[in-house]
Amino acid sequence: MIGVLANMTVAEGKQEEFENVARDLMAKVKANEPGCLIYNLCKKRGSETEYTFMEQYTDAAALDAHGKTEYFQAAFPKLGACLAGKPELIVLDAIQ
Amino acid sequence: MIGVLANMTVAEGKQEEFENVARDLMAKVKANEPGCLIYNLCKKRGSETEYTFMEQYTDAAALDAHGKTEYFQAAFPKLGACLAGKPELIVLDAIQ
Repeated sequence: MIGVLANMTVAEGKQEEFENVARDLMAKVKANEPGCLIYNLCKKRGSETEYTFMEQYTDAAALDAHGKTEYFQAAFPKLGACLAGKPELIVLDAIQ
Repeated sequence: MIGVLANMTVAEGKQEEFENVARDLMAKVKANEPGCLIYNLCKKRGSETEYTFMEQYTDAAALDAHGKTEYFQAAFPKLGACLAGKPELIVLDAIQ
């Protein structure tokens, strides 16, 4: 199992737009990707602008397939337009 | 739903001991805590010492109950003994 943490700082005032794009993306991931075990956007407590996508995939193929979906590729620039800086992507391997 | 990320840097040479304590803890959490949706120790890719517990709970009560279990309180100092520094605990609220 592969974990992914995508840490994003959203520009002030762009939170609602960002969350709406993410909600739509989360729904499509959950409806279309059995290999995606977890796909949750979370907001860091105590912050109004720091978010993390907590993601887990069964394997590398599932992670790869996720990145190639039409809806992810459509959502990514929309999410990016709401950010105050570059996202931080952390890939982790689960300890079985 | 509440997300928790516990970032830990393990002392060189203590990885196996750390992972074994974590495996035992993960098994007990999964067997005893229906309110804990995810409880996975993951190792950051490209690092030999950086780990993250990716956790998700149904609500604050489930998170609170987790911290009070006998097995978590027994495991925590054992995990701590393997660390090279203080763990970083990040609590997040899921965007529904």
